[in-house]
Amino acid sequence: MKKTVQELAVILGGTVLGDGTREIEDIKGLAEAGKTDITFAVDPYTEYLPQVHAGAVIVAKEVPAGDNTLVLVENPRLAFSQLLVLFHPRQTVAKGIHPTAVVDPSASLGEDASVMAYAVIGKHVKIGKNCTIYPYVFIGDNVVIGDDAVIYPGAVIHENCELGNRLVIRAHAVIGGEGFGFATNEGKHTRIPQIGNVKLEDDVEVGACTCIDNGTLGSTLVRRGTKIDNLVHLGHNVEIGEDCFLIAQVGIAGSTKAGNHVVFAGQVGCTGHITIGDNVVFAGKTGITGNVKGNQTYAGYPMQPHMEWKRSQIYLKHLPQMSKRIKELEKKLAELEAKTAQ
Amino acid sequence: MKKTVQELAVILGGTVLGDGTREIEDIKGLAEAGKTDITFAVDPYTEYLPQVHAGAVIVAKEVPAGDNTLVLVENPRLAFSQLLVLFHPRQTVAKGIHPTAVVDPSASLGEDASVMAYAVIGKHVKIGKNCTIYPYVFIGDNVVIGDDAVIYPGAVIHENCELGNRLVIRAHAVIGGEGFGFATNEGKHTRIPQIGNVKLEDDVEVGACTCIDNGTLGSTLVRRGTKIDNLVHLGHNVEIGEDCFLIAQVGIAGSTKAGNHVVFAGQVGCTGHITIGDNVVFAGKTGITGNVKGNQTYAGYPMQPHMEWKRSQIYLKHLPQMSKRIKELEKKLAELEAKTAQ
Amino acid sequence: MKKTVQELAVILGGTVLGDGTREIEDIKGLAEAGKTDITFAVDPYTEYLPQVHAGAVIVAKEVPAGDNTLVLVENPRLAFSQLLVLFHPRQTVAKGIHPTAVVDPSASLGEDASVMAYAVIGKHVKIGKNCTIYPYVFIGDNVVIGDDAVIYPGAVIHENCELGNRLVIRAHAVIGGEGFGFATNEGKHTRIPQIGNVKLEDDVEVGACTCIDNGTLGSTLVRRGTKIDNLVHLGHNVEIGEDCFLIAQVGIAGSTKAGNHVVFAGQVGCTGHITIGDNVVFAGKTGITGNVKGNQTYAGYPMQPHMEWKRSQIYLKHLPQMSKRIKELEKKLAELEAKTAQ
Repeated sequence: MKKTVQELAVILGGTVLGDGTREIEDIKGLAEAGKTDITFAVDPYTEYLPQVHAGAVIVAKEVPAGDNTLVLVENPRLAFSQLLVLFHPRQTVAKGIHPTAVVDPSASLGEDASVMAYAVIGKHVKIGKNCTIYPYVFIGDNVVIGDDAVIYPGAVIHENCELGNRLVIRAHAVIGGEGFGFATNEGKHTRIPQIGNVKLEDDVEVGACTCIDNGTLGSTLVRRGTKIDNLVHLGHNVEIGEDCFLIAQVGIAGSTKAGNHVVFAGQVGCTGHITIGDNVVFAGKTGITGNVKGNQTYAGYPMQPHMEWKRSQIYLKHLPQMSKRIKELEKKLAELEAKTAQ
Repeated sequence: MKKTVQELAVILGGTVLGDGTREIEDIKGLAEAGKTDITFAVDPYTEYLPQVHAGAVIVAKEVPAGDNTLVLVENPRLAFSQLLVLFHPRQTVAKGIHPTAVVDPSASLGEDASVMAYAVIGKHVKIGKNCTIYPYVFIGDNVVIGDDAVIYPGAVIHENCELGNRLVIRAHAVIGGEGFGFATNEGKHTRIPQIGNVKLEDDVEVGACTCIDNGTLGSTLVRRGTKIDNLVHLGHNVEIGEDCFLIAQVGIAGSTKAGNHVVFAGQVGCTGHITIGDNVVFAGKTGITGNVKGNQTYAGYPMQPHMEWKRSQIYLKHLPQMSKRIKELEKKLAELEAKTAQ
Repeated sequence: MKKTVQELAVILGGTVLGDGTREIEDIKGLAEAGKTDITFAVDPYTEYLPQVHAGAVIVAKEVPAGDNTLVLVENPRLAFSQLLVLFHPRQTVAKGIHPTAVVDPSASLGEDASVMAYAVIGKHVKIGKNCTIYPYVFIGDNVVIGDDAVIYPGAVIHENCELGNRLVIRAHAVIGGEGFGFATNEGKHTRIPQIGNVKLEDDVEVGACTCIDNGTLGSTLVRRGTKIDNLVHLGHNVEIGEDCFLIAQVGIAGSTKAGNHVVFAGQVGCTGHITIGDNVVFAGKTGITGNVKGNQTYAGYPMQPHMEWKRSQIYLKHLPQMSKRIKELEKKLAELEAKTAQ
């Protein structure tokens, strides 16, 4: 496909600065882009533009750009994303049900479904329109899935789970496995059956090998638009709000409730039965040990407000010196005491 | 199903305080329970009972309970578990071997086995009575499994592993994969073949996407009754005692041996080749760096006894103030020195 | 198989100290080895040799060895590895394509391939000679794999990935899943399509349930000889050098580049968009927060050079005492001031 810079600017609702007649054939990264490619730059990378020789560069504001034509837009990342879809449309998959798929006769599938080899779909499952089910996907009895879902190879959706529209479930994610609940008597652990389910609302994404346990009673819940990375663990009855990010290897223990627009960076761990407000950001590896009000940034273990944590870490580096100063003080004071006593 | 509170109390070996003739139809959480539901409460939740309007509440001791009938038992959590099984018996699965399962003719399956679609069972495998093998379960050659096992979709049991009775292996768990052992020569790593196996004793549970590597020689061993959560890693030749808990995302390096009744909370990491006593509790995210005697609680990285760690963390917060006090002391002392020198 | 100690020493290029005519039938661990077994010992375990009664012991230098015959070699671990292969050759698998495997007609498979039950191989896939593809392996369209690869059950290789020779991919590893990239606009996250791939060079190993995301554009890259353990996460466009070790549960965020011979110990977390030099060692649980020059050892979070981190941790333990000394100083100084003021 070929488009002029001007045609692309129209698609993006942007403004051309420079030669809009150049023909663009592909979208590439800043370092790889050549004469027939469009790319994008945000700070601090915009300062490299004079060394870049692309066909065009998407930016948020006018900057020195050497021989590059600029396309000004409000959100360069979003524009970049739009052009990726334009130049690299998602691979289409064959529609229909592969003969090796085992679909229970009581299951219903919306139109334009693609169910690939060796998928297993249980009793009374309801799947919406235009869903793509890759090989080895296991969908347990009574699961409900909305329209336009993409479920990658080996994902497991246990019985009774309820999934919204435009869900993306990546390879080997496990949704609705039985939560980790035991009653201990004289040192022996007896499983407390977990009979709830998992609800994932519209536009949720779940990463590869991520495990979301079902509720003991009721549901483990992830609300609209929240994106979950790989290898994340959500315990039974966890509730995550809308438009959150859970980066890789985060673990959240049972019954914790988080608000909207919360960011859990990689390897954050969170204790159970607590409440987290809206718009909280947890830096990577934070250990969340108690309730958290909204609109704050936390770090460390045990967690502290991010600025306090940073300050603590700096003072920590000064400790050897502080120790020396105390020793010095003790020595001088002893001398002074001796002198005064004379 | 309907039961009176009195009938349920008999089943639980408990005592009714209030109206034992009420009819109970289901078991619910404290917040959701209505007139025909039984629920349970432990401290601190018992204080909310006057606001609860359930049919009956299981408790450990008499408490102000508003209009609720109480059922007194020794272990409310255990009683709750019993009633969950009563009101929500586990879904029965069809017995028999699905025609698409690939079972080697030399494998033997006990009576009442259920082997579902696309399971693969290798040579000389021995599986006990009443086992449930979900789709895509791979069982390698020479594996032995006891009675009443439940193995969820996609679990992989590599060759030669030995599993006890009443095992639960969750989706995509990998048992007996080759351990991470290399000999390094002039900077290049050559695999040391790991030819041992994994032994899981009776009543062990293994969470989703949990990986238990095989022994280099000999076995990686998890003893009776130990429960392992999702996304846990156990290296080659690790030994875990009886009735332990390993919460989500714990990682234990090769050849470490833990005693009985040890609790590893979420995201704990443990170095290899060490020994851990009985009844030790490691708080979440603890970094276990050396041998640990029994009957203690540890936290932090590097680990400290829990109370010491807590104290360190408090002093850490006082550091800026300590620094200020040292500066103040230096100033005053200098003044005093000057004054005395006059 | 039976070999004399002398015959084994010739195979290993080693020297016999003691009775070379003894017959050896197996290789065992130091504690388990008996009269017809060979074993190996490195410090500090060599001191136990007088209590060991093996047929022969592989060591790096002459040590008191009781009644054991010694075989001196340069690298006992490597020699041990060689003998493991000798006494326990890897199980051979049946060659050929299982009738239930779904192989696209446009795919090409080299000679001596073994493709087991229920594998799915997509369009235009090219697989080299002597590869072993276990059940439930999913290989997406256009994937290229070299010779002698072993791909264990349930591994997923997404479309367009390029894998070298002698690759080992363990169960449920996910290679080339779409990276975690979103453009956020008014609080809503829109996926940035990730259209790159993953390249794994020769002799790379990837552990069970490890997830390596594809590049946004371009490739996520793991260079020759690097070994990756279980449950590791590599984000989009990460580059790892040659002969590195990534131990279990390590997570590395997008676009980070590491040099050669880097060791990431268990549960290390690394931020995105940074550069790490050659020969760096990160202790377990290190939080890597910025660029790192080569040839150093780091620990802690935020990371510090290992020795500094150790010193900080020691001073941390002295904090309560330091606080007491400051209080004491304040008291004494006040007394002295009062006295001087008189």
